[in-house]
Amino acid sequence: MDFEFIQPLLKEDQKSKIVLLVMDGLGGLPMQDGGKTELETACTPNMDALAEKSMLGLHHSVPFGITPGSGQAHLGLFGYDPTQFEIGRGVLSALGVDFDLGPDDVAARGNFATVDAQGVLIDRRAGRIPTEEGERLCKLIKKHVHLSGVEFFLVPEKEYRFVLVLRGEGLSGDVTDTDPQTVGKTALLAQASSPAGEHTAALIRDFVEQANQALKDQHPANSFVLRGFAAMPKWPSFNTVWGVDAVAIAMYPMYRGVAKVVGMTVMPPAESMEHEISMLEEQWNNHDFFFVHIKKTDSYGEDGNFDAKVHIIEEVDALLPRIMALDPDVVIITGDHSTPAKLKSHSAHPVPVLLYGKNARPDLIAEFGERACARGSLGPRFFAIDLMPMALSLAGRLEKFGA
Amino acid sequence: MDFEFIQPLLKEDQKSKIVLLVMDGLGGLPMQDGGKTELETACTPNMDALAEKSMLGLHHSVPFGITPGSGQAHLGLFGYDPTQFEIGRGVLSALGVDFDLGPDDVAARGNFATVDAQGVLIDRRAGRIPTEEGERLCKLIKKHVHLSGVEFFLVPEKEYRFVLVLRGEGLSGDVTDTDPQTVGKTALLAQASSPAGEHTAALIRDFVEQANQALKDQHPANSFVLRGFAAMPKWPSFNTVWGVDAVAIAMYPMYRGVAKVVGMTVMPPAESMEHEISMLEEQWNNHDFFFVHIKKTDSYGEDGNFDAKVHIIEEVDALLPRIMALDPDVVIITGDHSTPAKLKSHSAHPVPVLLYGKNARPDLIAEFGERACARGSLGPRFFAIDLMPMALSLAGRLEKFGA
Repeated sequence: MDFEFIQPLLKEDQKSKIVLLVMDGLGGLPMQDGGKTELETACTPNMDALAEKSMLGLHHSVPFGITPGSGQAHLGLFGYDPTQFEIGRGVLSALGVDFDLGPDDVAARGNFATVDAQGVLIDRRAGRIPTEEGERLCKLIKKHVHLSGVEFFLVPEKEYRFVLVLRGEGLSGDVTDTDPQTVGKTALLAQASSPAGEHTAALIRDFVEQANQALKDQHPANSFVLRGFAAMPKWPSFNTVWGVDAVAIAMYPMYRGVAKVVGMTVMPPAESMEHEISMLEEQWNNHDFFFVHIKKTDSYGEDGNFDAKVHIIEEVDALLPRIMALDPDVVIITGDHSTPAKLKSHSAHPVPVLLYGKNARPDLIAEFGERACARGSLGPRFFAIDLMPMALSLAGRLEKFGA
Repeated sequence: MDFEFIQPLLKEDQKSKIVLLVMDGLGGLPMQDGGKTELETACTPNMDALAEKSMLGLHHSVPFGITPGSGQAHLGLFGYDPTQFEIGRGVLSALGVDFDLGPDDVAARGNFATVDAQGVLIDRRAGRIPTEEGERLCKLIKKHVHLSGVEFFLVPEKEYRFVLVLRGEGLSGDVTDTDPQTVGKTALLAQASSPAGEHTAALIRDFVEQANQALKDQHPANSFVLRGFAAMPKWPSFNTVWGVDAVAIAMYPMYRGVAKVVGMTVMPPAESMEHEISMLEEQWNNHDFFFVHIKKTDSYGEDGNFDAKVHIIEEVDALLPRIMALDPDVVIITGDHSTPAKLKSHSAHPVPVLLYGKNARPDLIAEFGERACARGSLGPRFFAIDLMPMALSLAGRLEKFGA
């Protein structure tokens, strides 16, 4: 596969520094007609002051109308078109549980399930068993299953979900799902989807048989299904593509994971937002691109807690002076996608962006909010993958095109 | 041929309802410097109030600078890229005269013409004979021509124009024009442009010879030329592509025709705009996507009648409360293209769009007009084919992309 980037010619040996501050799920909606969004409601004097010196806009990380997942949306911000650079479901799950996936590992997402005496699926989620029960069953399988020549890991996720990882020589993600995605059928036999997948498919069939044997007397989770077999993608690294030395600072596994997928240096988990900014300060002289991820805006959006999301935005605003005190050349403040508290879920609404640069042409709009961003010079609907070239340009890191 | 849609994953079994209200040729121009457009001049309290709760923008159905025909522009609104989904000229003509084109029929556009004694074209429009004369000549040909194994239909259009339709087994639109598109030459011999067209080309050559024989003593229309041989396109249907059950409500044949081409259910011709809204009310529980077409905005634009176009927009505004009383989840109000009264023709100016949704992020711009739309969050130059995914998204009909 060829990877297409909007790749401009990079200037060598630049010292300028770029901060990408992502408030997850930042975009919002008013709770009632004529009201304000979370970001518009928040009292953000520091962001508003920075907005006045910046360019504003609203971004989409995927085509209009589509709601992206977090991994996909972050790829867009990193300049990797998420409709082209696909991360397998198994890999996303492994990243989400902070599993340190090796370059040759193959991961799959698993569901504990209930089957009848004939092996027909009755419940693909085994009655949504508690997380502790999922943990116990993972241990049970681990104890009873032995695969020849490969190591395997079982990591419980929430409730009935788990991640299976195979580690060994000659593995491939080219294996079909055992999950028929419906009840009333038996689980499917894992098959190779290319010759490279034959060995792995045989191992998975062996695993499935042994693990089902181990589970057969359990209730209600007496079986399981697997889907999304995948290995870590082998993509051009962020540092190579954009000519920077990038570091990721985040509290949650998924975001450190997606940064790892694109080859950023990844800091250990931060313990708080303040801790994240302290890490940024400590790392300032060691790198030149800083991805800082704030999770709780999204979490409170998912909870439908408008006020708490507003409050987190205000806390981030209070931390902004510490970032600006480092004298960054370029700062991007944005979200990966929208998570309006009104909808309690990700949504397809475009996401506010503030692009500050010492050489930016400011929009002179002294407000960071969705409707303010809709009036900004980045436009009300630009694609997230265009952000990196614009940021690099403002940072003086791009060569001229032509004479 | 493969058809490319920006096709997101559709959620099954959604109940939300979407109205697409198209005022044909809606986009306009001021008649004098500093003036207002037709839409800006019209007193539209209902649309203005809805605008405040909506997202606004200006759309292009074809690339910037290009003026679309009505059929092409509607395809764009339906999410079918008109530069990729081509409807043959013959089919467009057949749709325009309300001919019920079957799936295997082949249609062509005909011009009555004047030729000299050597058969050289002197006038490709036969002195723009009156419509009644065209009707008489169609009957004359019908009486004298007999084709072997196929049925044919001749439908007069305006003045010198007519539509020829062949109906039978094994027909194909792969036949070249007989129209040399210039005077001073003889009409061309119809040829197959692919092996599939051989049979049809032979029938057309036979038709041309017999029909010329029938016309030879007429004056000034003693001959004719044919162009744009085509069969109904076989495209993925609107309902399949977008996961809706769509119905088209329109007064004029062309618009019911283009809806038929994409596989919508098409209501019988409405008798007035009020009748169209009554049909909408009656059909509300039978479908979930409603294409309602208003013709007269375009007609008055073509006439150069600024005031009459303004008045029609005001009449549509007065009908809007009846649409909103149905409690639609999403409403799009737009045009297919611009037809400024100032220009008395279609033009390439972008077209105002109002996209209302219960979960839209409103622009808070309480005016529906071209310059107001240019400030809206849909952007001042977005592509019409992006409307359907955005509308479906607001209607809760799209799955998330990724995890």
